[in-house]
Amino acid sequence: MVFPFLHKLKDKRIVLASSSPRRKEILSNLGLNFDVVPSKFPETLDKSKYSPLNYVIANATEKGLEVYKRLLEEGQKIDLIIAADTVVVFDGEILEKPKDEKDALNVLQKLNGNSHYVYTGIALIYPKIESGYSISTLIENTEVVFRKNSEEDFLAYIDTGEPMDKAGSYGIQALGSFFIEKINGCYYNVVGLPTSVFKRIEQLVKNNEI
Amino acid sequence: MVFPFLHKLKDKRIVLASSSPRRKEILSNLGLNFDVVPSKFPETLDKSKYSPLNYVIANATEKGLEVYKRLLEEGQKIDLIIAADTVVVFDGEILEKPKDEKDALNVLQKLNGNSHYVYTGIALIYPKIESGYSISTLIENTEVVFRKNSEEDFLAYIDTGEPMDKAGSYGIQALGSFFIEKINGCYYNVVGLPTSVFKRIEQLVKNNEI
Repeated sequence: MVFPFLHKLKDKRIVLASSSPRRKEILSNLGLNFDVVPSKFPETLDKSKYSPLNYVIANATEKGLEVYKRLLEEGQKIDLIIAADTVVVFDGEILEKPKDEKDALNVLQKLNGNSHYVYTGIALIYPKIESGYSISTLIENTEVVFRKNSEEDFLAYIDTGEPMDKAGSYGIQALGSFFIEKINGCYYNVVGLPTSVFKRIEQLVKNNEI
Repeated sequence: MVFPFLHKLKDKRIVLASSSPRRKEILSNLGLNFDVVPSKFPETLDKSKYSPLNYVIANATEKGLEVYKRLLEEGQKIDLIIAADTVVVFDGEILEKPKDEKDALNVLQKLNGNSHYVYTGIALIYPKIESGYSISTLIENTEVVFRKNSEEDFLAYIDTGEPMDKAGSYGIQALGSFFIEKINGCYYNVVGLPTSVFKRIEQLVKNNEI
């Protein structure tokens, strides 16, 4: 528990509403104590009705509320829910996980030599002193620039299987880093959880909101 | 061995001339096989005589040549030496590792709310077909922007000891990430080894230089 605001959280029940091992790792690295309760909210929001920005905020909020309400119904103590949603956006369009290997190649060729954007929406949900709850949201946006890569290298990458469960068909932390020339923004945002979430939690603690 | 050019390197003796565990990890993650032989070149180049850019290139080259010549004298086979030097630059000045905790706080306060730059110079050294050696160098430059952080948080960070062996008094991979708002450039460059080194090695392989 390095940073002073973390001491004030040591008796609080904090829940990460995500099953992502990468998000868990980022939160743990900075010394936060928390439980993981993945959200059961089905990701069924109609992407065509939202800008990418509003989509990630809406999705993070729904994911967080599902966990918050479920745990309350079970009579559990909750002081803070952290929910997140990350999308990869190229040319204004949200990129999904690839359907198959051909689709993965297609997506990687689109990104090749170009910029795209990674948006993460964060929803922090915490009980109000009187009753009900408050939601504090934030958004982080990182530009990712691909080098001009060869089809040969993309095919070798697809053969590893790494792209198949990744939105945008690449992961920045491992082999996918080979394709990236530079980023502009928060690195951890691309991994799935921007470090600005800690600053926001610090603020909430300092304002005695949690 | 994921990327096709790596197959052509599988019988080559590649040596990383650095003891940095972070550089070793980045090279390993991308599937390169190599040995580690830390350079014994004393870092005694007079910083005042070089721009940061020329300093990291000169230092990387000297580190690499020291290992190259030493291993040749021992009769060892060498196909490629990878040497690197990273510096943190604020306001045109190279920041060293902090002398003590007071100095670390001083440096962190300088960086606070501001941009600084991380330069890595890379020297790739490989034998020429006829005789002697070639040196291929590259430089990567990443801008790092600190949030406006509190002295309280800096003091807590210094207490962990993490800043004490780090140029610029912070490490981006662990707790230091708390202070960073964004970067502009290659993330792995800030960790100590830009991924562009792989693209350069790929080029050398394709040109049959190594």
